[in-house]
Amino acid sequence: MAKIVRFHQTGDADVLKLEELPLQEPGEGEVRLKVEAIGLNRAEVMFRQGQYLEDPQLPSRLGYEAAGTIDAIGPGVSDFQVGDRVSSIPAFSMQKYGVYGESAVVPAYAVATYPETLSAQEGAAIWMQYLTAYGALIEYGQLQSNHYVLIPAASSSVGLAAIQITKAAGAVAIASTRTAAKKQALLDMGADQVIVTEEEDLPSRVMELSAGHGADLIFDPVAGPFLETLAQAAAPGATIFEYGALSPEPTPFPLFAALAKTLTIRGYILFEITQNPERLARGKRYVYDGLQSGKLKPILDRSFALNDIVEAHRYMESNQQNGKIVVTV
Amino acid sequence: MAKIVRFHQTGDADVLKLEELPLQEPGEGEVRLKVEAIGLNRAEVMFRQGQYLEDPQLPSRLGYEAAGTIDAIGPGVSDFQVGDRVSSIPAFSMQKYGVYGESAVVPAYAVATYPETLSAQEGAAIWMQYLTAYGALIEYGQLQSNHYVLIPAASSSVGLAAIQITKAAGAVAIASTRTAAKKQALLDMGADQVIVTEEEDLPSRVMELSAGHGADLIFDPVAGPFLETLAQAAAPGATIFEYGALSPEPTPFPLFAALAKTLTIRGYILFEITQNPERLARGKRYVYDGLQSGKLKPILDRSFALNDIVEAHRYMESNQQNGKIVVTV
Repeated sequence: MAKIVRFHQTGDADVLKLEELPLQEPGEGEVRLKVEAIGLNRAEVMFRQGQYLEDPQLPSRLGYEAAGTIDAIGPGVSDFQVGDRVSSIPAFSMQKYGVYGESAVVPAYAVATYPETLSAQEGAAIWMQYLTAYGALIEYGQLQSNHYVLIPAASSSVGLAAIQITKAAGAVAIASTRTAAKKQALLDMGADQVIVTEEEDLPSRVMELSAGHGADLIFDPVAGPFLETLAQAAAPGATIFEYGALSPEPTPFPLFAALAKTLTIRGYILFEITQNPERLARGKRYVYDGLQSGKLKPILDRSFALNDIVEAHRYMESNQQNGKIVVTV
Repeated sequence: MAKIVRFHQTGDADVLKLEELPLQEPGEGEVRLKVEAIGLNRAEVMFRQGQYLEDPQLPSRLGYEAAGTIDAIGPGVSDFQVGDRVSSIPAFSMQKYGVYGESAVVPAYAVATYPETLSAQEGAAIWMQYLTAYGALIEYGQLQSNHYVLIPAASSSVGLAAIQITKAAGAVAIASTRTAAKKQALLDMGADQVIVTEEEDLPSRVMELSAGHGADLIFDPVAGPFLETLAQAAAPGATIFEYGALSPEPTPFPLFAALAKTLTIRGYILFEITQNPERLARGKRYVYDGLQSGKLKPILDRSFALNDIVEAHRYMESNQQNGKIVVTV
């Protein structure tokens, strides 16, 4: 038996229940993890609320990221052995798999080893954040050392990963955040500059900080009317990646800025990387090397116990965190 | 002396005046054309109205495209000789140059020879339309033979050029037009399929015509609420090029389609090609070869006399044309 988090209806955090379920056996192409740490993602909050890209099939497990040790291997798996220390990559559907619990079965293509110098908590804080930022900035954005990169909502784990990837390329990371509360933390965590959008005019600040050039790459999970502000801050030929929909308001397309500056505005999701074997292999290599060299370093916020999963979700929804929220099993 | 079209105030077509002005001498890096034919563009209507990307400096000449014979060469020009049969490429500012008239001085980098088999009228109907469609579909869109290309407002000269370029690549050209009036003409001019948007549901027709795949490339000068319709018709990973703003209404960004299908929506203008020497050289080569092989063939609508330039502009604004409106000098 193992303690597993499931929900029987969509809704607030307290729909999450810790249940004793029989240990699952891994099927064809699957492995089972003895989970040591779980990394929390906003996608799971949306999935729990019934507002994600895919709907849960109730009762549903949930969770993309866990670190642990492989304790069982299904037929047809040759890349891993029992005892391997791995973490899971969000390359599967939460309609079929979920890693919140003491034990988790996942597809073998969706696990990877991580450097031994990292803790299990850090291991659960790798793939979602770094592969998401990698795909936009490196794979599609062709990040160069002379680029200015604008990173709104920068205190999320993905935002912080984008800051680290920008710095690793020798480019300039301009973070933005709504209130002054997280400004110093963002500077401490590596941002070259931080713009507080409630207090400062974002486009004119970006122009100042880039000697009138504007941002070459913008990596934005907010959308809504903010997209027009971002377009004003963009350099000629810039790409704006939209990877979320945090704003509840409609999103206008900034047509005249897009024409005058020939902007590219691109919807982007991690599955573009994780569902393409070549891109995923490039991304895993990039992230592994960055972790090993120390240029990439997961930033952890708070750790919760598995018993406190409801509280952990509530904390994520409160938006107080700087970095990854983890659950230690 | 030469008859030159100028306007002393922005406004309706009748601000255009035919004036007798002294022949200009070409300066450093410039050549002078004895004009034989002029190709009309919507950009010139917008410029005349004071609604273009750049404002006229009054009194102002206008016009991007003329075909003729070089009759004078300025200092520092080595690529051309007096007597060369060329046409002008829209690679300059109309604040400095305009080709409506019997004589026109233009920068030497903005003229090119065209195949001898083409008439002067056809020569004045090449560069704007083919380079505009080339840049989006070939240079950036990486058009492949298995692509479905959706071409709204397809009866414009640029739309027809896009149909020909799509067909030359072996891909499927789906044209759209508002009313049934131009449907048969579009089929006759090479479109594989024509969707009449006032009578048919565009996304479901595109899905039908592409066996459920959707359009890989969309080349749209309309924008406005129509962009949401186009996003519904797009294939996963599609690119929507926005190269105009014909709709007077605001343009919403189709955020959820963009995320679910990872769409790229890109503001695109011809200057991206004409102001970059390498891209322009590739584009000129592509267009010249296409014209010579017969895969590209300018489609002319009506020809006006230079004296009737006001009427010619009014006709363009009436949106009755299929193909290029030219003025024969």
